[in-house]
Parts: sequence; structure tokens; C-alpha cells
Amino acid sequence: MTATTPSPLTVLGTGAMGTALARAWLAAGHPVTVWNRTPSRAEPLAADGAVIAATAADAVAASRLVVACLLDDASVGAALDGADGSDGADLTGRDLVNLTTGTPGDARSRAAWAAARGARYLDGGIMAVPPMIGRPDSGAYVFYSGSAELFAEHRGVLAAVAGTEYVGTEPGLAALHDVALLSAMNGMFAGLLHAFALLRGTDVAPRDLAPRLVSWLGAMAPAAHTTAERLETGDYTKDVVSSLAMQAAGVPTFLRTAEEQGVSPELLLPYLDLMRRRAADGHGEEDTAGMVELLVRRATDPLPSLPVS
Amino acid sequence: MTATTPSPLTVLGTGAMGTALARAWLAAGHPVTVWNRTPSRAEPLAADGAVIAATAADAVAASRLVVACLLDDASVGAALDGADGSDGADLTGRDLVNLTTGTPGDARSRAAWAAARGARYLDGGIMAVPPMIGRPDSGAYVFYSGSAELFAEHRGVLAAVAGTEYVGTEPGLAALHDVALLSAMNGMFAGLLHAFALLRGTDVAPRDLAPRLVSWLGAMAPAAHTTAERLETGDYTKDVVSSLAMQAAGVPTFLRTAEEQGVSPELLLPYLDLMRRRAADGHGEEDTAGMVELLVRRATDPLPSLPVS
Repeated sequence: MTATTPSPLTVLGTGAMGTALARAWLAAGHPVTVWNRTPSRAEPLAADGAVIAATAADAVAASRLVVACLLDDASVGAALDGADGSDGADLTGRDLVNLTTGTPGDARSRAAWAAARGARYLDGGIMAVPPMIGRPDSGAYVFYSGSAELFAEHRGVLAAVAGTEYVGTEPGLAALHDVALLSAMNGMFAGLLHAFALLRGTDVAPRDLAPRLVSWLGAMAPAAHTTAERLETGDYTKDVVSSLAMQAAGVPTFLRTAEEQGVSPELLLPYLDLMRRRAADGHGEEDTAGMVELLVRRATDPLPSLPVS
Repeated sequence: MTATTPSPLTVLGTGAMGTALARAWLAAGHPVTVWNRTPSRAEPLAADGAVIAATAADAVAASRLVVACLLDDASVGAALDGADGSDGADLTGRDLVNLTTGTPGDARSRAAWAAARGARYLDGGIMAVPPMIGRPDSGAYVFYSGSAELFAEHRGVLAAVAGTEYVGTEPGLAALHDVALLSAMNGMFAGLLHAFALLRGTDVAPRDLAPRLVSWLGAMAPAAHTTAERLETGDYTKDVVSSLAMQAAGVPTFLRTAEEQGVSPELLLPYLDLMRRRAADGHGEEDTAGMVELLVRRATDPLPSLPVS
């Protein structure tokens, strides 16, 4: 979060995150033009000094640096191509930084789309919730990928709202990093919910378990380094201290404890099941890293159904 | 891990963990008698100075403090009641510390069983893998619950192999803490496997993602404190920074990214599904803590089937 000379920019989208970003840039002394599909949600930013643009095209015309933070990738196209009946924006010579949540594939398509319209493109994945934006001590940061020139030129402005982690020119890399970290976090949160659910009906207070959980997870997270090393060498058996066979033998304890405590084991079952399948498939002497093999689909595998509706 | 006067003890079970425990006690200067159902697996400990007992009954007769570290709870009963045709052990006046993996219910039954045989009982859940035992800097510790007198009397000896965390007189509490922490860890490991699987076929090296994952999980784990507070107050809506509705809106990004990268979403689906169900059920403004309500079965709910076979 570097001090930098005032540099005008445009923010498209004033949801919770877009608003936090716009406020942080205004607070850092940068002139900010904002636009939102529902204008009333942009208006509060006028009090902070933002210029409210009537259309996305106007907002894009106002600044060379254009930051999009919209609902989803389709909203980016709709806003800038004028799919809602308004004129399309002229992106020629613009630097588009897209912080809208999306997949790596979305980012690659959007980068090609921007290039076809004469804009440089940088994709970003925000590792923060809105209250962390613009607070240098919050640990907030953004993964960026795409145009290295754009990133180098605007790094100072971007750094005014959150830390910057540039991960490569391939536009999908920021989203890949973003989704990978959030996926790991979701797994951890699932485990925490199961742990807390086990306490129901006991005398153990959640607030007494919490520090033990935090400390234990912090101690165990560095296992990711070992997993990474095994995945790179493809050697899942060297120096294994807790084999899949040993861990699979412990599965009934998890399931019976959940049953005793009246807790649905649904959040743990797929992992335990994957572990048992891998162990039963002749990999009992391996570490858990080899379970990744069962997650990666071969080209001939049928697509899994996604029961989440 | 306190210095203490030599105090004889018996270790039943010389698998990887029992062997590590026996070695650590021998190294700390305590006379150790060991027994194993398959005698050949106990023999290597003779070179470390252990006395090998021919039967479990002999091993129990050798020391007042008896530590069991067997395959499962049934093995404890089989070894000490002589179900394998041997004489049962005389537990009268013995202090039984049961470090065998089991459920809270196993621990309560085994405590009653020990009391009926005239023994004091302490249950333990080991938070370590064998190579961490007897190394004061490893962070290894054991949750203990059950007889407070037994714990107070033998704490010095117990502390020679790993840190001690006494969590209460109810014998099931150590197993409850053990399973809760390991469940949370399994969730985190599931998330890590999914994250690493996403990298297949990309230029991102697992070893480059690992430090980012470790740092991110370490930063996010303290969310457990907020979850605990919400569970205690029952208020899932106060000061929510990332609502279930917002998080549920992000679910398709996780699923589409997995599909793009050719990764089965099976490890993440139950958590994402639970989130969407809770949000759809009128709790969209809440934090994730309220999802615990959906995991806790009401007395009238049918038992879930456990498809893990």
C-alpha cells in the first residue's frame, strides 16, 4: 500500500466490495468515478467525493484505468457491451482490471474479449472481505494475472486498497489461485462446523474448544508443504508417518462419534470415503497426497453430476 | 515433560504408537514392562531395556500404572478379560490409562468396566504421530479425562512422553476433544487436496501454492473464535461481513472451476450444499455458524445411512 500520486480511476459496481474499494481509493486521494446498474446504490459515494456516472459508457470514458467489481462475469459483458439497451462502452486504449468473481475460464474469455475491444486486461481475485479493504494491517490482498505492463503501470494505485500478488500473464491464474485458497478454506470451515456440532449436548463450551482448534489447525496446515513435495515427485510412500491404512482404520471412530453425538457426518464422509477407497485400492502404505489422483478426472471419465441445485 | 523420579509402568500394545511411548518412557529413566498380542512385535523393545511380559495379566501384575495403546476398544477388553483363552488380568488397585483410539461412548463404558474391576481409569486421546512422542519441542500432547486423582498422581510420568491437557472427570471428554480436532483437520486436509487437484495441467507448481495455502489457512482459522461466540449466543446475524446469501452466490464459481480443471467436486459439495440449503431456508443474512443447526439431528430424525463401507 504505497503512497502514490493522485491518479483518476473508474469503479464499475458498487456492491459491498465495489463500495469498499471506491472509498479506499478516495481516501488515498485518487479521483474516482463510479457507476452502478442500480444508481441509488452508487449515490452514497458522492458524499465521499466520487463522481457518479449515468452510464457504464460514461464511466469508462472518464478514466483510463477501469476497475470492474460486478456480480458475475456475465454482468461485465452486459455492462460494457450495453446489453441492457444502453450504448456499449468504448474500451479502446483502456486498462481494464476485472475484480469480478469468476473462474479461470471466465478470465481467459474476458481477456480475449477485452483485447478485441482494444483494452489491456488484468484479472484479479480478492482475498478479503470488504471491511479489510484499505486497511494496510488487515492482511487483505489481491491475486492479479494478465497484462504485466498494466500491472506495472498501475501497481501503486492498486496497492492503495490491498496487497498485490501478481501470479503471471495467463489471465486465468488469479482466479485459479483465488478459488484454490477459498476451496481449502471451505474445507477447513466444514471441518470446524463438524467439530462444533459434536459439542451439542455436552458441557464443553464452543469458546473453550475454539482456541484448541485454531492452534491445532495452525500446527497441521504446514502439512501442505509435504503434500506439495509428494505431488511434485509423485512419491507418496517416502517417510510416511501416518499411512492411509492406519488412517482408514480410524474412520469408524469418526463415524461412531458423530452418531453418538447425534451429528450428521455428511461434511466428513467424502474425505473418509476417498481415503478408504484409496487405501483399499492397494495404496495403504501411502500418505494422503495420493488421494489427489482420485479427484482428477481422466478424459474418459463421465462428468460428475452436481447435485447442488 | 517434567523431570520425575523413576516410576515403573506397563505398556500394553507395541504398535507404532505403543512402541514410541515405551521408548520415550525408557529414555526418561522409567522401568517399563511391555506386552503385545503378537510377542515378536514387542521383542525389539528388550534392547531398549523393557521387560517383555508373556501375558497381559503378567504385564498388569508388574506395575500399578498400566497404559493401554491397542488397536481398538474391543482389543482392550479382549486383552484384559482374557477373551483369547488366557487368564484375565487382576486390575484391583491398578491405575489404567487408556490411550487406545475410541469414541466418547467407548471411554465411558470402559471407565465403568474398569471401576467394576477395582481400577482407577483415565482416558486419553493422543494429538501426535509416533515420531513426535518424547520430543518436548514437537508440540505433541494428549487430552486426558477421567480420574483426577490418577492424573494428579501420574502426571509427571505421563508428561515424559507428551504434553498433558486434562479436560475433565467425564471419561468421554478426551475422546470428544480428540475426535473434534481431528475432524476439523480432516476437513482442512480435504480442502487442501481439492486445492492441489485444481493445479493439475496448469503451470502452477504445488510447492509454489503451498506457502500461500498455509498462510491463508492460518489467517482464516481464527474465524473459529467468532463461530464459537455465535454458537454460544445463538445470534448468527450480528456483524456479519460475508453473509450466507453472498457466499451461496459464489458456489457456482467453485463448481465451474472444478469442472474446468477436470476435478471432481466431491470433497466440497456437502459444505456448499449445506450453505445453499441454509441460505434458501430463510437464513441468507446469517453467518456460516448457523449451519451447525443442520448438522445436529433432532431426536425424531432418522439415522443417516453411512455409505462409507
